[in-house]
Amino acid sequence: MGTFESPIATVDVALFTVSEGRLCVMLAKRPDDAGIFPAVFALPGGYIHVTEDDDAEACARRVLRGKAGLRAPYLEQLCTFSGKFRDPRAWSLSVAYYAVVPATELVGTSLRLAPVDELPALPFDHNQIVATAVRRLRGKASYSSLPTFLLPEKFTFDELHAVYQQVMGVAINKVSFRRKIENQGIVVPVPGEKLYGAHRPAQLYRAAERTLMEFDQII
Amino acid sequence: MGTFESPIATVDVALFTVSEGRLCVMLAKRPDDAGIFPAVFALPGGYIHVTEDDDAEACARRVLRGKAGLRAPYLEQLCTFSGKFRDPRAWSLSVAYYAVVPATELVGTSLRLAPVDELPALPFDHNQIVATAVRRLRGKASYSSLPTFLLPEKFTFDELHAVYQQVMGVAINKVSFRRKIENQGIVVPVPGEKLYGAHRPAQLYRAAERTLMEFDQII
Repeated sequence: MGTFESPIATVDVALFTVSEGRLCVMLAKRPDDAGIFPAVFALPGGYIHVTEDDDAEACARRVLRGKAGLRAPYLEQLCTFSGKFRDPRAWSLSVAYYAVVPATELVGTSLRLAPVDELPALPFDHNQIVATAVRRLRGKASYSSLPTFLLPEKFTFDELHAVYQQVMGVAINKVSFRRKIENQGIVVPVPGEKLYGAHRPAQLYRAAERTLMEFDQII
Repeated sequence: MGTFESPIATVDVALFTVSEGRLCVMLAKRPDDAGIFPAVFALPGGYIHVTEDDDAEACARRVLRGKAGLRAPYLEQLCTFSGKFRDPRAWSLSVAYYAVVPATELVGTSLRLAPVDELPALPFDHNQIVATAVRRLRGKASYSSLPTFLLPEKFTFDELHAVYQQVMGVAINKVSFRRKIENQGIVVPVPGEKLYGAHRPAQLYRAAERTLMEFDQII
């Protein structure tokens, strides 16, 4: 179609989770017979299939289903990386997405965890995609419920505080954090549900909405 | 290249200016011999030329040079619109950008002004692109120097206040606006330069930086 040679069109996904207290991105091993960078770890991604994908987001969801078994993670378009040189084969563009899931949803995948602050050298411009995604994730986390998508459905206040710290990569004053979270109604207590452990029982909370909520600056 | 049929890959630009006190987007008439939507007004755009454009942003700059004679407007990637149905010819994607220029830089172009709140029906998903771009522009204007890119190099405080109101589409209290602008150092007075007119002479200002500056919430 069209008068001009089309670029290669792909989708790549920076899939974030928190594991052992660290913000991590998931890497997939490229096939042993890949035409380029065979058997190398990279962001999960693939060609847009015009006969199969309704749009680029559907392509990203197909990649996440196929490579991580994920059905409905939090998913958002990041931006498009493009140019003559990013793929040694030809002019290419990648519509990059980022996704956010609790680590429990990644049990049994063949993906490999990589802490974002100790990322190995990745093929193409995938290090730049991850860096851009981390900036977006941190920017948005500072005024939204985005980090709650890294938690299981029910969580304690201490777990919520910890995950915001892990995403932002900084210490957050717990008293003022609690005040902002409570004032803005980001989470709601689950009636009658407490976590019993070594300490006094802790109230369990859940996100007030299942979709992303935006707020005044939290952090 | 590649095992799969590639989508059509284009770039479209929502080019904003303020004219007669209203936020406007510029529309270009499609060629009389266009294969689709001939002679219809649409966002300026075009195919990515893989032999000519270094990347998608270079394509957007080529479109703005060719259709509006613009050399260095404020330009930023918005997001990518894609899918089976947005172009009746085939699966297509458009890497959408938005740009912001003073109206004085558009003198003599063949582009047509359209106020964003009275936009005609546009082909493809261009109404959706404009709506997304207006949201981004307003979101970013509320905490950055973005509206100063709509002004000439030197401007009065009243002109600055007016352009923030025009971009945001709301009335802004002038006293608290002045305090926030001054506290955050968004503009600096031009020494010795005043505008003389019917009223008492008004100090002229310029943006503190030629690049986009981000701040605490202004509005």
